[in-house]
Amino acid sequence: MLLLSCPDQPGIVATVAEWVWRHGGNIVDAEQHTDHTDGVFFQRVEFELDGFAHGRDGLAEAFAPVAERFGMQVDVHFSDERPRTAVLASHAPHCLTDVLARAKAGELPADVVLVASNHPDHRELAGFFGVPFHHLPVGDDPAAQEAALDALLVAEQVDLVVLARYMRILSPGFVAARPHRIINIHHSFLPAFVGAQPYRQAHERGVKVIGATAHYVTAELDQGPIIDQDVARVTHRDDVDDLTRRGRDLEVVVLARALRAHLEHRVLPWGNRTVVFS
Amino acid sequence: MLLLSCPDQPGIVATVAEWVWRHGGNIVDAEQHTDHTDGVFFQRVEFELDGFAHGRDGLAEAFAPVAERFGMQVDVHFSDERPRTAVLASHAPHCLTDVLARAKAGELPADVVLVASNHPDHRELAGFFGVPFHHLPVGDDPAAQEAALDALLVAEQVDLVVLARYMRILSPGFVAARPHRIINIHHSFLPAFVGAQPYRQAHERGVKVIGATAHYVTAELDQGPIIDQDVARVTHRDDVDDLTRRGRDLEVVVLARALRAHLEHRVLPWGNRTVVFS
Amino acid sequence: MLLLSCPDQPGIVATVAEWVWRHGGNIVDAEQHTDHTDGVFFQRVEFELDGFAHGRDGLAEAFAPVAERFGMQVDVHFSDERPRTAVLASHAPHCLTDVLARAKAGELPADVVLVASNHPDHRELAGFFGVPFHHLPVGDDPAAQEAALDALLVAEQVDLVVLARYMRILSPGFVAARPHRIINIHHSFLPAFVGAQPYRQAHERGVKVIGATAHYVTAELDQGPIIDQDVARVTHRDDVDDLTRRGRDLEVVVLARALRAHLEHRVLPWGNRTVVFS
Amino acid sequence: MLLLSCPDQPGIVATVAEWVWRHGGNIVDAEQHTDHTDGVFFQRVEFELDGFAHGRDGLAEAFAPVAERFGMQVDVHFSDERPRTAVLASHAPHCLTDVLARAKAGELPADVVLVASNHPDHRELAGFFGVPFHHLPVGDDPAAQEAALDALLVAEQVDLVVLARYMRILSPGFVAARPHRIINIHHSFLPAFVGAQPYRQAHERGVKVIGATAHYVTAELDQGPIIDQDVARVTHRDDVDDLTRRGRDLEVVVLARALRAHLEHRVLPWGNRTVVFS
Repeated sequence: MLLLSCPDQPGIVATVAEWVWRHGGNIVDAEQHTDHTDGVFFQRVEFELDGFAHGRDGLAEAFAPVAERFGMQVDVHFSDERPRTAVLASHAPHCLTDVLARAKAGELPADVVLVASNHPDHRELAGFFGVPFHHLPVGDDPAAQEAALDALLVAEQVDLVVLARYMRILSPGFVAARPHRIINIHHSFLPAFVGAQPYRQAHERGVKVIGATAHYVTAELDQGPIIDQDVARVTHRDDVDDLTRRGRDLEVVVLARALRAHLEHRVLPWGNRTVVFS
Repeated sequence: MLLLSCPDQPGIVATVAEWVWRHGGNIVDAEQHTDHTDGVFFQRVEFELDGFAHGRDGLAEAFAPVAERFGMQVDVHFSDERPRTAVLASHAPHCLTDVLARAKAGELPADVVLVASNHPDHRELAGFFGVPFHHLPVGDDPAAQEAALDALLVAEQVDLVVLARYMRILSPGFVAARPHRIINIHHSFLPAFVGAQPYRQAHERGVKVIGATAHYVTAELDQGPIIDQDVARVTHRDDVDDLTRRGRDLEVVVLARALRAHLEHRVLPWGNRTVVFS
Repeated sequence: MLLLSCPDQPGIVATVAEWVWRHGGNIVDAEQHTDHTDGVFFQRVEFELDGFAHGRDGLAEAFAPVAERFGMQVDVHFSDERPRTAVLASHAPHCLTDVLARAKAGELPADVVLVASNHPDHRELAGFFGVPFHHLPVGDDPAAQEAALDALLVAEQVDLVVLARYMRILSPGFVAARPHRIINIHHSFLPAFVGAQPYRQAHERGVKVIGATAHYVTAELDQGPIIDQDVARVTHRDDVDDLTRRGRDLEVVVLARALRAHLEHRVLPWGNRTVVFS
Repeated sequence: MLLLSCPDQPGIVATVAEWVWRHGGNIVDAEQHTDHTDGVFFQRVEFELDGFAHGRDGLAEAFAPVAERFGMQVDVHFSDERPRTAVLASHAPHCLTDVLARAKAGELPADVVLVASNHPDHRELAGFFGVPFHHLPVGDDPAAQEAALDALLVAEQVDLVVLARYMRILSPGFVAARPHRIINIHHSFLPAFVGAQPYRQAHERGVKVIGATAHYVTAELDQGPIIDQDVARVTHRDDVDDLTRRGRDLEVVVLARALRAHLEHRVLPWGNRTVVFS
């Protein structure tokens, strides 16, 4: 499929549709969006390759003249791609368990190739799901730990990093090497309660809803493009532990929805926002 | 814009896009859906007419060859259309008030040309919004009342009938004359609690959520294609009056969303279901 | 009914229940909450006065020994109280219309005695609901306008001020004179998007949920105790106008729920939080 | 704690509070509800036993005179009770996994003593959580299978049976032996879509929300008292598989909330409804 973005101008839809058709493809799904504020056009075009004139490798090249004409940014994906995915966690097991269980159930088109943690807790859990576990303790040298993590991800050719309640802050360099390839679940409805202990902050502010936010990680903490969010109503009866417990149910679902949207190539980041096709 | 449905087959998207482009239109929005169970393709294509080769009247005719080739059902709409709309109500004012207020605020692309009721209650309200009010009492002869209503709608060239908590059942003949042109708000999450007093039924069943459903009216009571639904959580503390009061807030919002979707030509009925584009 | 708060300690519930019973009252509802973090006990006790030993005026005095023993803050209310309520609005009519319609429908136990605005827009609307309208233009002298408003509220013996999208900031002195007697609806899920143009802020941050917050007004802008909040999911398709339109439906419902809770004496503020009994 | 229900009459609250206090208990939480339709009073009174005049065994007996005076049905529970719980499942693992994970995480005050299934699928899963697994195949003789299940539950002194997507219908006799001690999760917002394949029914009806319902099992299929429900919005894009997948996230959360309410003794069934204290 093709994911496009370019300055909005007449003729894009027709040109793309005609190009696919002329090269023997059949469009099975297409969704588009025009951001009128910024004058940007976005499109996701999914088509069948049976009888297509080009092999996978030639597709991007064949489309290049169209892309050039409209000044498009283009991503090409294939629906049988299964990104090599690393799941990072700290103490809390719920998001890690959920991602592993969904991957095993066939709900996520990804290959989870490793679990890594700054704690040894989840070795048995990863083992149950047949995924190698790597304990990367922080000790006295956080930079060395991140370097070890970086080396591991490179060695394992990891395409996507999922921060399943991984409580370490990643350095700008680590993040910059993986643009739109690190997804984090933050336990508040951002931009409220950035940073540490959001449920404690929520309790102190006396909010009546709590939330969770899945977003791409950028250099600035908790400021990356939001992929999905959801919330739950709470009351004065919920103390910090209750908020934490209830928030877990939000976190797993929001992270799973965001992961699924990313893996189905339905997310197009644009600056600090995202277009998420349905 | 064009609303299409036809048997799913290769080439539809490209052909339609190419047709619009070749006749001088520019597609500003397009959304499609394929029902794989029934093998049916749906599409909504919105394009600008500046520089288009055909006048409004000629558009459908010019498109006819494409429609014929793919066996399409086609509806042509223009974004400046404002259907002549009648709002029917009984005693309860909330949905009527809400529709009139939204129409006045410019939120609904429709001209509300009349309010009709089997009770005299809402004359002052309609007057405040500058809409003619018709009192059509039922008395001893329900059939005569419906005939008077029918004559009124015909005389006023009404395109769309909104049942804003109108508590009379319409005859199959009345309904059949207005396919997909009568929208009702039912005060339950259908198919639960069909028929009379759904909040009483809900209380007796002890449900923990109540709902509201906006749907096209068909000959079979509360069985027409659903356009929108929503729900709210309730507790054992809510008696029938509480459910009724809380349900009102659902009813106005669900009816408004459904009306807006219909008026923006985003709803394609298919059998007893609907495709509602976003 | 009695609204109590005091340091948590054994025997409160039994003492209060016994006191009501011994003086001839019958408890029809009682709800309590203990904030274990701060060690504070809250209770709302609703009882029937048929056969009660004290008149309304004597009730607080008769209860004083119990209050003193436990160090209680006590509010006494009667279910037939109808606070004299002023609704303040600026240009946007939706919250004002909704409050007036609910008051008229008997849904809110309050007497709306005036509508005031810094604009002349809502004279006709207030008139339709039979409520006096006061136009208080700001002109060159904001302090004078607030002084006029203050004088009006004093003259009309207003108990409760509802800011139904009133876009003027009130001075600390004005607010301090009415503790927990000014309720505002803010068009974001606070603490996100404090201040002006929250829907524009929300669009720029690219959030996937928007919200509304009803809170008591304190001297610090948008920082007062939250009474109720709610949210709605949005997508990349929603521009600032769409967020504004969709937010309106949240604002009316959240404000109405908060007003109702306040008027039913179910809200106990505590520092910057609230206990809201069900 | 005491769970009471009785005909509504003056003096109950004061009498109970005074009784607890006089016997040396301290009420830490109390919630009550009066069903005005049926004239029934419900109360949950939680109190500390430090310094209480009676041992656990003597508590019910000591309270008997109060119960008799008001015609109360009384249940006595202790907060350190951990019911012996059996989880029954068929093929689908998601509810079973979730219950076992929550129990292990300390989120549910229950001892899961066995997992039983009509299929062999979940042996490894139960083993991971350290819970004995029993495979009870149906074969040619459903009655014999149910008898084996019944014997197992009796032998293991099971207090609570959780049907975590167990797809066998239980006989009236089996159910009658365990009143309000079998909790089922049904994958629709009952009373809509009773019986088999509710997601298929939902798709055919074209609903825009799907739901899940946790309820006590009674002899009549899917008709027992509802403990909790929740829903999610769906669109025309969701086919039966999508509804099934999305419904799973509802099912686990609704079942967990209902279980937790039951285990915290916050659920009082009344006829076919429930009072669920907060």
